[in-house]
Amino acid sequence: MRIYFTFEPRPDLREPLVEEFPQVDFVFENGLSNNELQEADVLVTYGEDLNDENIQYATKVKWIFVASAGIEKMPAQAIIDRGIVVSNVRGIHKTPMAESMLAHILAIKRALPWVYEQQKKNEWSKKAKQTELRDSTALILGPGAIGSEVGRLLQAFGVATIGCNRSGNEAAYMNEMVSFDQLAEALPNADIVISVLPKTEETTHLLKADHFKAMKNDAIFMNFGRGNLVEETVLMHAIRTGEIGYAVLDVFEQEPLAADHPIWTLSNVIVSPHISSHSSRYVERSLAIFKPNLEKWLRGETDVENRLDLSRGY
Amino acid sequence: MRIYFTFEPRPDLREPLVEEFPQVDFVFENGLSNNELQEADVLVTYGEDLNDENIQYATKVKWIFVASAGIEKMPAQAIIDRGIVVSNVRGIHKTPMAESMLAHILAIKRALPWVYEQQKKNEWSKKAKQTELRDSTALILGPGAIGSEVGRLLQAFGVATIGCNRSGNEAAYMNEMVSFDQLAEALPNADIVISVLPKTEETTHLLKADHFKAMKNDAIFMNFGRGNLVEETVLMHAIRTGEIGYAVLDVFEQEPLAADHPIWTLSNVIVSPHISSHSSRYVERSLAIFKPNLEKWLRGETDVENRLDLSRGY
Repeated sequence: MRIYFTFEPRPDLREPLVEEFPQVDFVFENGLSNNELQEADVLVTYGEDLNDENIQYATKVKWIFVASAGIEKMPAQAIIDRGIVVSNVRGIHKTPMAESMLAHILAIKRALPWVYEQQKKNEWSKKAKQTELRDSTALILGPGAIGSEVGRLLQAFGVATIGCNRSGNEAAYMNEMVSFDQLAEALPNADIVISVLPKTEETTHLLKADHFKAMKNDAIFMNFGRGNLVEETVLMHAIRTGEIGYAVLDVFEQEPLAADHPIWTLSNVIVSPHISSHSSRYVERSLAIFKPNLEKWLRGETDVENRLDLSRGY
Repeated sequence: MRIYFTFEPRPDLREPLVEEFPQVDFVFENGLSNNELQEADVLVTYGEDLNDENIQYATKVKWIFVASAGIEKMPAQAIIDRGIVVSNVRGIHKTPMAESMLAHILAIKRALPWVYEQQKKNEWSKKAKQTELRDSTALILGPGAIGSEVGRLLQAFGVATIGCNRSGNEAAYMNEMVSFDQLAEALPNADIVISVLPKTEETTHLLKADHFKAMKNDAIFMNFGRGNLVEETVLMHAIRTGEIGYAVLDVFEQEPLAADHPIWTLSNVIVSPHISSHSSRYVERSLAIFKPNLEKWLRGETDVENRLDLSRGY
């Protein structure tokens, strides 16, 4: 059994793995080579390095473990055609992402960007415009593993949470639920609008100009899902005209964001370069999910955790 | 009954108060005048504008309502001599202060200062050094109303809390308690060390060089209590030599901090100009505490909420 990692875990994480599975021949490489792919039985990847051509070399691969949650860059049809099992690390992002979202929300409410700028000027001033998170209302588009974790933390801060998904069916840590159809009616109540929606046909341009018009003028809009949710021209218009108060964006229509994109310098917009899920503990957590599933796989069981249906896109 | 405010609440907060108490003659002034003080039966103040001389004019004042938590700037002996009842808004700070503390902690863990700087350069980079708050340990010096609220929020983020007070007696939202005597032994376990201690003789220079040596090299030290806790030379040495990782300071030995103080420009130090308790909802909350107590006072009851013993200093 040969397992090919297209990234190199730190020695303190890699070595215990090698020791724990002496029957496995591990290959750790920083990057993807078709030569190695030809030899591999299992592929461990972040999922962004694979294309149709590579898959033609993966003749022995029966399982791809994706150490990531988004799989839209993977060559889905080629993988389906080969009958390869694909699983991912669903849920791994929830802690760092929820912490990032709370960091951004609290930083705005408690005026940290202003505090940092005053410090650079050695200027003691108490004129910070600080508000509070408590008693506000948040609308969460896509209350799955990540959205519910954000909801849980927001509730601890005394925030009322409204979840919004296709069906309007119940989700954890949501005080209330609405369906996509009821979104426009729910938006005027929200002080914070957060999306963690995946990229699908249905979520593409789900938010339109009228939705931003319906938001509070001091609403904080946060896109931590995918950049397909809203056209950036629509979003920039909403910010420029004061239809919303703040935008915190971790995702964009085109990534990386071009250096000359006007959104970099727009007031009241925070550009986070799609890093909200990153964490020094990321690989540690991925391997913690990988190991029990590798044990299963070695026993000949193919019902690994978080198996994906690539035809549905998530 | 004449009530003298030495600050002016916004009209939307002031007018309902005047309407609700037609039997009271309210005076709202932005600042303190001895003339008004001579006429007043009740004084409502932030507590920083009073000195010994003023109190000599306050011949009719029987109650001072302090819309603040710290009272160390008040002329205690003169007030005691006149037998004036003093009460404050204890607990009012807990929400904005706890939100500020979580904002600073999460901003550091999730690298927001770095994100903001990258944005200024229009630079898309994923090289942020991000860690997580989850599974860390916080030591809270002074787990009273504010400290316990921080503890509550930290626990929601999966943080273990160690409270530290004089007695080591139980406090809310602390997984564990230690006394001041056991502080040095507890410090090596803490990823975050927070003080919200008041200024008393006992807390003056409570933290010494050895305490910082005992902390983790990547510990975040936060002083949101009073600047008397530690000599700034000791604290700056600990930061410069890497004995601790970060310091977030809302209070200082001398406030305002002089423009040429070296701490402004020290790496890994955040200077917050004693604003962590500020909030756009501050006066609203103060009045919400004031009103029921004014009703009591008008009925002739002097056992108002949060009565202070000025001889003890808190």
